[in-house]
Formats: sequence, C-alpha cells, structure tokens
Amino acid sequence: MNVQFFMPTKVIMGKDCIAANAGELAALGKKALIVTGRNSAKANGSLADVIAALSANGQKFEIFDKVMSNPTIDCVYDGAKAARDAGADFIVAIGGGSPMDAAKGIALLARQDIPREELFSGKYPNDVLPMAFVPTTAGTGSEVTPYSILTNDKLQTKTSIASPLIFPKIAFLDAKYTEGLSKATAINTAIDALSHSVEGMLSTRANRLTDCLAAESIEGIFSCMDSLKTGKLSFEEREMLLYSSMLGGMVIAHTGTTAVHSMGYSLTYFRDIDHGRANGLLLGDFLKLVEKTFPAKVSEIVSFGGLSSAEEFKARLSDLLGEKESFAHDELEKYADIAVNAKNVKNGIVVPTKEEILSIYQNSLME
Amino acid sequence: MNVQFFMPTKVIMGKDCIAANAGELAALGKKALIVTGRNSAKANGSLADVIAALSANGQKFEIFDKVMSNPTIDCVYDGAKAARDAGADFIVAIGGGSPMDAAKGIALLARQDIPREELFSGKYPNDVLPMAFVPTTAGTGSEVTPYSILTNDKLQTKTSIASPLIFPKIAFLDAKYTEGLSKATAINTAIDALSHSVEGMLSTRANRLTDCLAAESIEGIFSCMDSLKTGKLSFEEREMLLYSSMLGGMVIAHTGTTAVHSMGYSLTYFRDIDHGRANGLLLGDFLKLVEKTFPAKVSEIVSFGGLSSAEEFKARLSDLLGEKESFAHDELEKYADIAVNAKNVKNGIVVPTKEEILSIYQNSLME
Repeated sequence: MNVQFFMPTKVIMGKDCIAANAGELAALGKKALIVTGRNSAKANGSLADVIAALSANGQKFEIFDKVMSNPTIDCVYDGAKAARDAGADFIVAIGGGSPMDAAKGIALLARQDIPREELFSGKYPNDVLPMAFVPTTAGTGSEVTPYSILTNDKLQTKTSIASPLIFPKIAFLDAKYTEGLSKATAINTAIDALSHSVEGMLSTRANRLTDCLAAESIEGIFSCMDSLKTGKLSFEEREMLLYSSMLGGMVIAHTGTTAVHSMGYSLTYFRDIDHGRANGLLLGDFLKLVEKTFPAKVSEIVSFGGLSSAEEFKARLSDLLGEKESFAHDELEKYADIAVNAKNVKNGIVVPTKEEILSIYQNSLME
Repeated sequence: MNVQFFMPTKVIMGKDCIAANAGELAALGKKALIVTGRNSAKANGSLADVIAALSANGQKFEIFDKVMSNPTIDCVYDGAKAARDAGADFIVAIGGGSPMDAAKGIALLARQDIPREELFSGKYPNDVLPMAFVPTTAGTGSEVTPYSILTNDKLQTKTSIASPLIFPKIAFLDAKYTEGLSKATAINTAIDALSHSVEGMLSTRANRLTDCLAAESIEGIFSCMDSLKTGKLSFEEREMLLYSSMLGGMVIAHTGTTAVHSMGYSLTYFRDIDHGRANGLLLGDFLKLVEKTFPAKVSEIVSFGGLSSAEEFKARLSDLLGEKESFAHDELEKYADIAVNAKNVKNGIVVPTKEEILSIYQNSLME
C-alpha cells in the first residue's frame, strides 16, 4: 500500500470561527494584505469579521480588492506590488477560488522576484508570505491546496502554480458566508467540489486515504442534491457542502485533477462558462469512458451518491445543471486540440485520446 | 458542524519508502541523532535502512539506543544530553511507541532547558529539533501525534507532554519492519491502535473528519482480526494494520484518549502489562458503559467491525487477548483512585465515576 499524505494547513470550521479563533491570526504578523474580489466579501460579512479579528489583535491591514473571476497573471503581479507597497507580512484571502488562487501567487511574488516565464515552474526558494484563507463558496477547496490556478492568455487556458510553499497556514470555514450565494453559484460550486473528489478517485496518484476523504466528500455533496435543486439549503447543508468542498481540496492536493478539468478550462476560457459548471457538464461522460475499463471503480464512486451507473450519475448532474449552452462542432475540435496536450489529462487512470476527448465534448454538450 | 484538523506531519508509506525518499531526510540537517531501543531496529532492518539513507545524503549520525519500554523522564533528559553532545541538528526515531515518544521529549529538551516540574506544561518557546519517525510496530500512531507519553514515577502513572511543536516533520511507514514481531506484540499493538480509534470516537473533541478516519481505521483493523488470531499476517495485512494505526494516531492527535487509557496506565505501571493489551482488556467494558447512554454511537462504532453490540465487541477482544492476569480487589481499588483523577477521563462523552471505573476494572479483569 502506497500512501502519501501531507496537509500542513490548519483547518478551523464552525459558525463564527474567525471571532472565536482570532488569536490564530495574531501569530502571522503585524500587517495583513486582505486579498479579495470587488463585492462579495463585503456583502456576506466575511470582510467585516476578518477586520474585527485583526483589529482585536491590534494588527494593521490594507485591502486589495481587485481580483476578478478567473484571475490573470497580471492580477497576481499587481497584488504582489500592493503587498510590498503596504509592507504586509501576511495575506488574508477572502472569497471563492479566484481570490484564494490569486492570493497564493501574490504571497509568493511579494517575497520573490519571479519572472513570468518561470512562474509556473514550481521551483522557488523557501520564501513566501504566510496566508490565512476564508472561503466564501463551497467549491474550490483552494484553502487546503498547494495550487494557484491562473488564466494564461498565452496558452489560452488555465495553468497552475503548484508548490507545497503555497499551502495556506490556516483556513477558516464558516458556512454563514455562503448563505447569500445565488442558486446557480451554489450548484456550480458544489459540482466543482464533487468533480474534485470524483476526479481524485480517478487519478493515478489516488491512495487509500485520499479515497477515504473523497468518499466522505461525495456522500456529503449528494446528501444535499435535492436541496441544491430547489435552492433551499439549510444551514447544516451549507456546512456539509463547505466541509465536503474542503475535503475535495485535500484530495486534489494529493491527486491533482484529470481530463475533466483540462477539458473544462476551454469552456471557461472561450465561453465564460463557470468553472464548476464546466466540469459538471463533462464529468458524467468522462465517468462513462472510465467505466468501460474500470467498471468496479466507477460503480464504487457512484455508489457514494446512492447511484448504480455512470449514466445515472450523468443524468443526476444534467438535471441539476439545466439547459446547456450550444456549441459548434469546430469549437469543440479546437478545445479537444488544447485539452489533449494539458498536463492533467495524463493524470487519470484512463488517458483519453484526442478522439475520445472530442466524443466526451460532443456527448456532453451536443446531445 | 465544528471541525478542527491539523496534521503537519508528512506521511510517506510504502515498501522501501525510506530508500525511495531519502531526499526528505536531507532537508532536516547535517547530523542526526538516531533514537531507538536496544535491539529491534537492528534486527528488523530499519536501522540499516535509515543509516543507508543518511549516508547516501552525506549526513552524519550518532545512535542513542538506550530507550527502554515505557520510557522514563530520566531517559529523555539523557537523550537530550546525547543530542547536544553529538551536535545533532535533527532526530530520527525508530521503533515502537517507546522510542518515538522518548524522541519527542529529547528533541524538545535538546533545544530548551526545561526544568522537570515544567516538562508537562505544554508551554514552550517555538524551538525543537526536527524529527523523522520510523514506526516498527503498528499500534501507537506516535509518528503523527503531538504527544510524548512518559512514565511518571512521582504520580505512579504515565503523563504526557502535549504540544504541536513535537509533531514529527516526516513519518516513514514500511510494513516490512513489522514482519518479525511476535504474535503477542502484533495483537497488543493492533489493539492499541483500535483503542485509539474507538476512544477517539468517544471523545468530546471528536468531529466528523476524525470520525471518518477512525471508521477507516477500525474497519482496517477488524479486517485483520482472524489473521492476528492465527498469527499468520500477510504483508498486505501488515500494511493495513500500519495504515490503520497511523490513522488512529491522527484521530487521537485531535481527540485525545479517554478513561480507557487512564485506567490502562495502572495495569502497565504496577503490573507491567503491555500498554495495548491493557487498553484491550478494558475497552469492551467501557464501551458497554457508554452504550447505556449512547446506544446509537456505540452501535455505529462496533458496526465498523461487523459487530452489533459492545458485548460482542468485548467477546471478540477477549478471544484475541487469551487468558487474563489475576488481580486482587485491593489493587483495583488503588487503580481506580488513580484513574479517576487522570486528565483523559474527563475527555469522554461519558465520564465514569470512581464506582463505575472500579466496576469496569472488576468486570474486565475479575470475571
């Protein structure tokens, strides 16, 4: 049995956990740069909670709220300049995947001059600002991963900084920040988390412990499916989704993602389809492909959702995702060309050919 | 949902994992003090593997092989002196719980002058030698806990240093080192691990994630019960036990242990009964007590072993433990007096009174 497990991020989850654990922030430094998006952290109360905790500790802060959806490489260089200008000695990231992923790049670039062409090398000296993360959606799991996923215009897709250096020190998980999410965002982010746990189990790097966490996560997300569909999530369900999403992050921190993510990136890059939705549109057909070679593995995975086949799994997700966008055959050809060369494609126990990738796109999006 | 999870130790498990990951040791420093017992690390090949890895890295080492079973406070002060004399800048601990627990105290005292009366305070400056751990039994889980459990003659029991400072940096888990264990040691250590996972689920500090790991661990240990009984464990079963024991360590790193451990310490201190066996003798009757108040919780726990009641659980363990030592009523009275004042008694969802503790001793040991 080969198991590797490394999860240096301290996870603190519970209602009002930031206020109750403000002391954890005190250890990180004297001045924070708060990295967030334009609006949501203000609206959902998370920014106010962070500011109250920092103030209670006598810590100073400045706010960098310029992180857009699907953050760019420019954005992290700008944020790093802001961190240096502010004299920040730690980062607090608040938001969904975009602010969290950007914050990791910012924390690294604030301490190191890395040229753009080496940003994705993963090889850096051991020097980074410590980070505390506050997820406000239940999807990305970025609060417990060593990845910063950035939009790469040169390659017309997303590419990742991957380094154990950029694990956050602390993650504060409070489901109250997810209460104002739209129904669509709740669904898309939940499906992103589901995709992490399912893809983690389909990775060549999966091990018994990551599978155990993935199973817990898949069960948790499926237990909320009916409420996601109606848009009426209880607080306990929001907590279950946030917990399951964190577990999905722990899984991919070890396994990476697979062809589904590689394929989804084009839907986001070229058509601005939400990242979680993009994965959800493709996940069922990828499972169907894997099922041909590994029927027992797929049967096990879907059983955690109370289902018995990849087809049923696909139907369940389709029901949640509603009407699909329409695509021309040429577009999908282009996406398949890009996806087949992506790194994570080779990470799966089944490595689809270009033809299989195109079939998955077609079966998922044109049926 | 309140979840706290902090596990900074990097776990690397697999056959020949030390040789394959020697580079991980290189990062810890130039000279190691290897902390181990008198014999077993030499006999089972683990010491040779560690020396080969250090030598391949060009790292120097000295060996402190004076750790006895149930290590004393004197032992860790002696080891710390050895570390200072050697100029060691990291520790490699090899063995069962005794060398690993001693090594944590040694790593701390090598860097700090802590008077004996403050050793168990848990409050120290952030300064400790980094540690790599190589468990050679599948029981203690010490390789992933922040505890150093030492025999305390003043209190006539065991007491713990508990501090996040003493989490090892790395744990190397290779089941080949457990192949030479006697049948009794294999059983006793497996039951120690089982006790950690079961007690973890009975702790007031349990959370959904520690319960998930505990369930995986209990299932894993029960899957090896028949082979433990015959003494014929396959390599895969040895790996399952080592994995499950590591999970049990992750569980108690968060939850602590309960009355069972408090009660077991007297059996070890006064009668030299192996630690795992001591817990195993008592665990069934503690579960029976808890079952009266929390029948659903106990039913869930024993279900991971394919059982349906605490009574069945007790019978299964009794079958494995064989003939019991005999005890006089007076002795058990004395042990109950000591146990009722122990810290971990209050850590359980059921806190037994002195009378209940005495009953558990009597039902477990005099029936």
